[in-house]
Amino acid sequence: MIRLDCDYMEGAHPKVLQKLIETNEVSTPGYGNDAFTAAAKDKVRLACGCPDADVYFLVGGTQTNATVIDALLARHEGVIAAESGHINVHESGAIEATGHKVLVLPQHEGKLKAEEVEKFIDDFYADETYEHMVAPGMVYISNPTEYGTIYTLEELADLSTVCEQAGIPLYMDGARLAYALAAEGNDVTLNDVARLCDVFYIGGTKVGALFGEAVVASPGWLPHFTPLVKQHGALLAKGRLLGVQFDALFTDGLYEEIGRHAVSQAIRIRDAFTAAGYPPFIPSPTNQQFFRLPNEVIDSLSDAFTFEYWGPRGETVSDIRIVTSWATSPSDVDAFISRIQSL
Amino acid sequence: MIRLDCDYMEGAHPKVLQKLIETNEVSTPGYGNDAFTAAAKDKVRLACGCPDADVYFLVGGTQTNATVIDALLARHEGVIAAESGHINVHESGAIEATGHKVLVLPQHEGKLKAEEVEKFIDDFYADETYEHMVAPGMVYISNPTEYGTIYTLEELADLSTVCEQAGIPLYMDGARLAYALAAEGNDVTLNDVARLCDVFYIGGTKVGALFGEAVVASPGWLPHFTPLVKQHGALLAKGRLLGVQFDALFTDGLYEEIGRHAVSQAIRIRDAFTAAGYPPFIPSPTNQQFFRLPNEVIDSLSDAFTFEYWGPRGETVSDIRIVTSWATSPSDVDAFISRIQSL
Amino acid sequence: MIRLDCDYMEGAHPKVLQKLIETNEVSTPGYGNDAFTAAAKDKVRLACGCPDADVYFLVGGTQTNATVIDALLARHEGVIAAESGHINVHESGAIEATGHKVLVLPQHEGKLKAEEVEKFIDDFYADETYEHMVAPGMVYISNPTEYGTIYTLEELADLSTVCEQAGIPLYMDGARLAYALAAEGNDVTLNDVARLCDVFYIGGTKVGALFGEAVVASPGWLPHFTPLVKQHGALLAKGRLLGVQFDALFTDGLYEEIGRHAVSQAIRIRDAFTAAGYPPFIPSPTNQQFFRLPNEVIDSLSDAFTFEYWGPRGETVSDIRIVTSWATSPSDVDAFISRIQSL
Amino acid sequence: MIRLDCDYMEGAHPKVLQKLIETNEVSTPGYGNDAFTAAAKDKVRLACGCPDADVYFLVGGTQTNATVIDALLARHEGVIAAESGHINVHESGAIEATGHKVLVLPQHEGKLKAEEVEKFIDDFYADETYEHMVAPGMVYISNPTEYGTIYTLEELADLSTVCEQAGIPLYMDGARLAYALAAEGNDVTLNDVARLCDVFYIGGTKVGALFGEAVVASPGWLPHFTPLVKQHGALLAKGRLLGVQFDALFTDGLYEEIGRHAVSQAIRIRDAFTAAGYPPFIPSPTNQQFFRLPNEVIDSLSDAFTFEYWGPRGETVSDIRIVTSWATSPSDVDAFISRIQSL
Repeated sequence: MIRLDCDYMEGAHPKVLQKLIETNEVSTPGYGNDAFTAAAKDKVRLACGCPDADVYFLVGGTQTNATVIDALLARHEGVIAAESGHINVHESGAIEATGHKVLVLPQHEGKLKAEEVEKFIDDFYADETYEHMVAPGMVYISNPTEYGTIYTLEELADLSTVCEQAGIPLYMDGARLAYALAAEGNDVTLNDVARLCDVFYIGGTKVGALFGEAVVASPGWLPHFTPLVKQHGALLAKGRLLGVQFDALFTDGLYEEIGRHAVSQAIRIRDAFTAAGYPPFIPSPTNQQFFRLPNEVIDSLSDAFTFEYWGPRGETVSDIRIVTSWATSPSDVDAFISRIQSL
Repeated sequence: MIRLDCDYMEGAHPKVLQKLIETNEVSTPGYGNDAFTAAAKDKVRLACGCPDADVYFLVGGTQTNATVIDALLARHEGVIAAESGHINVHESGAIEATGHKVLVLPQHEGKLKAEEVEKFIDDFYADETYEHMVAPGMVYISNPTEYGTIYTLEELADLSTVCEQAGIPLYMDGARLAYALAAEGNDVTLNDVARLCDVFYIGGTKVGALFGEAVVASPGWLPHFTPLVKQHGALLAKGRLLGVQFDALFTDGLYEEIGRHAVSQAIRIRDAFTAAGYPPFIPSPTNQQFFRLPNEVIDSLSDAFTFEYWGPRGETVSDIRIVTSWATSPSDVDAFISRIQSL
Repeated sequence: MIRLDCDYMEGAHPKVLQKLIETNEVSTPGYGNDAFTAAAKDKVRLACGCPDADVYFLVGGTQTNATVIDALLARHEGVIAAESGHINVHESGAIEATGHKVLVLPQHEGKLKAEEVEKFIDDFYADETYEHMVAPGMVYISNPTEYGTIYTLEELADLSTVCEQAGIPLYMDGARLAYALAAEGNDVTLNDVARLCDVFYIGGTKVGALFGEAVVASPGWLPHFTPLVKQHGALLAKGRLLGVQFDALFTDGLYEEIGRHAVSQAIRIRDAFTAAGYPPFIPSPTNQQFFRLPNEVIDSLSDAFTFEYWGPRGETVSDIRIVTSWATSPSDVDAFISRIQSL
Repeated sequence: MIRLDCDYMEGAHPKVLQKLIETNEVSTPGYGNDAFTAAAKDKVRLACGCPDADVYFLVGGTQTNATVIDALLARHEGVIAAESGHINVHESGAIEATGHKVLVLPQHEGKLKAEEVEKFIDDFYADETYEHMVAPGMVYISNPTEYGTIYTLEELADLSTVCEQAGIPLYMDGARLAYALAAEGNDVTLNDVARLCDVFYIGGTKVGALFGEAVVASPGWLPHFTPLVKQHGALLAKGRLLGVQFDALFTDGLYEEIGRHAVSQAIRIRDAFTAAGYPPFIPSPTNQQFFRLPNEVIDSLSDAFTFEYWGPRGETVSDIRIVTSWATSPSDVDAFISRIQSL
């Protein structure tokens, strides 16, 4: 069975695992107060071009979103997000559990539009009853989005400007950031992300690590963050495991390489489906691809390949999602493509 | 200046005030453990036709919603509400502050549709990832709604059935319940409300009390509610003030009388605007009326009358809301109508 | 039956009630945006000698404590309080419900000692693991305390200094502040309180109002407080009721007068018990008095007088609390004293 | 430098690491819905002698405590714990952040006494004002405690009885459970723990895993736990990593073996210090040992060995903690002992 369900179906990329093995018996202080973690933070800062940034390593994505958002918002504030945003849909109410409302705006292929964010904020303060409403305290975006789409540099700059004018931080959920950076047509660099977002995270879990997310914050945005990380149950005792893994990911361009590999395999699959008469129904340039297929096609493919339904199975036609990762071998993709060609 | 902004612009209805004056110097235990409160609870139970119901008196509406919803939901659950629901819009995130998401459905003139609630619940459990989402744990409706509209008996019964089948409670925010009961075309009695809703509250603040809301719960839905009321800062030290006021409201039909008075004055205003060529843009049969008027009409009326803009002022035309109460005198309404007729 | 259980057993002081009656039918905007409230805030500022202070009116004490503490603390911080502090004992976990720990220090007749607060803060930051602990973010005191005792000016100044040096606010719960100001031996004025505490509240519920507490904050400590008040369900729709009552309390020295009256009656009772061989077991100079009495004495008194047990009834001896208020008539106290003298 | 600071200073036990390496490239579903996790759950159930128990794997201890306690408590309840309990001291307020108070009882070498718990509960309900207080909703113990001490079977049975009579669950934090099971004089088996505690967790992080804690719950205590785990940011995407590790720990007695090894090395160190005239100041039979040493002894040892101060450094004498683990080699302990002998 060839599995294309998600990008967290295996352990770690071999180079990451190798580094964990090599360092396994070294004794270090706990909670990230170790030399591996310090080195990894420096590599992340270097990769982002922001030598002054604060870097923190957390374990998982939902945890990171909840902790960062809890840190950035005042009690009377909420977080603006697209309706399709992960924090609004798939985090079991983790944001609300910290006491904050997700202020929902329409999604456009998963993305927020800067002008709609601006209008929302303007309308909020134009409403005489605004003190009875939840104030917009920050903006959350994911890049790539939950639909695999990416922000252009212009879109990102516009969002940044809107946030800056409103005096609120722009936060990017980069759970799959490597795949945005490696996407066809992407014009955003990691330096751009660091420059335009006040806080963001570089996802490890879905990009070759066993687990781990690197939060990068411009100076001053996350004071007293460590006790909050602890309070959220997100401070790993053997914190050096995060440092070791991010050190590996940010050595010799591994992070970018994983991104490129996965995206290239996803594009091959997309092109095969398109050639077979099934173009993607969302134009994703990243490692997630979405197709609307006759149920008999889905059933036929399912004997040797696994993937997820995207929403409920329809009467005759259903939507599916295909995801690639560092672990997706070109030969498996060959086999899949050959099967698609024979549909 | 004649004020038609809202139904909480004066103190208490004279009969309510009179009862407060008469009882002012009587010594009683605190926190509602007094005979006035006990008597008022019995009167509320009698009026609702539910002798076994639990009755609690709280101070205000947002407080009541937050406390009841916090009591009814498990930690992983959220509350279904119309997009326009008060808890979603105008409570400064009080629900989220207790850790729960408001699960938003479309509003239809302020109302939820039973079939949409049913579909939402069905779709939720049909989604394979539902444990990553916020479970629907109860349904919130307001009656009258924030647009002044009311539920029919059939609509209420359908919602009740959907909730019962899903095993979740139906909760009605009755901040202005008297005006629904007195509305033109209303076919829902207080007994129906008590029978079809698992928990609801009878609003006092907007119906002649200085303050106060009476929560009525079918047995078993609100165990350990008193410490939660205290925890929410909603347990009034001089609790007997709530009992005294609800005793007055539920003596000799005062609650219903206030409802009828306010609605009849509102309908007179509605008819005058309609005759003048400005029918309401939402068909409300209650004490709130909504009109779309040329700005010059608004400006002209504003020299002697006050009311609220409903949303921002438009370029040439704006929406306004007119609200009546026990304190709206027929002669003031005469003056207003005469002015409308001269537009 | 003469009731000496508490200071919230009746309605409002006649002068407060009179003002509510006089203003009952005046139309005003809601939520405290009215002229009565504005005037009352000015009178409070004047009485406190702090023309720049922010003043907010809330409904009850637990609510006020929870809202203010939630506003003053960052997410990783807790509030230092005496073990006997109301927030630690008798608020059903309202502080924890907002996510914050109460950091408990020993009580000395209900009071915190400045040097113990200082040591706690010093020890906290001296602990290498302090980021795994709850940071002291403010200090809570009540004056009078839950035992009726009061802070001296020196004690208050010392606490203020410790807080200032630590960069954290000092907050006073003044639910019964009038009785401290009127206490025998008190050397603290309302101006001192306003000067030495960053935030405090002047209790109305227990000092002649139907309900209501006036929060007074030095500039800058409570930004965005109104939406938080709303979020906590503490924003009264008919907010002017709070303004009207505090206007009455701060007209012609009524607040001080109520304090003096209640304290003088309490002292008469104390002296009578002392003369009868039952001196108070806590030396309270305010309107709460605590006595340890043989059970047969308690039982004998109980035929005509009510008061509370302070803790569980003992085998042969029990502790009781006697409380006076504006409503305690000298003739009732005469009757009580005469009974005590005949013990 | 030989490090004896803690039991989380290295990576994983070689057998655990080996299993991670072997399984690294296998594709599985995420979030613990994989065969490794299923197998590990069965092994845990088998080791505990409770075939019907619910088993969940979480990442870390603070996270586990917060999630379990949040799941077990109603909104108006708190958790009873010893003053020295980890949840009261060293979790940055994680319990309070979920809205619940830690109800503190005295610690006796880190332990709760059943009779004191019983008295606390009895006194609570005997207090007439108990609805204004935080209700005891569960009991938290750690075994071994934060001082390395352990509960006897009788003590555990007594606590269990008290909890059962009160109708509240007994929860054991087993972050270092292996070391209790392997302790000198221990008479409690894993089966006893499973039988007497309603919910407990078997710690992995401090017992040879990279990370991971196994929650074991008697049926019915943790309904809807998975969405709550997700809400707490504790649902690992690559959940199988937890299954793989616990499978290794519960294969061929590795968990017990790690416990025995660490305890035996700790006892050797204890005996050496005792022989040198420095008996432990707390009689711990587990892998944590506590000594009060002259500062010059501490300074002398510190050139080649690391360990933690337990509290602040004293003027002439200080307390230190020595901790052993699977990674503590007998030869390193030899070196340490030899150094102690030469003191």
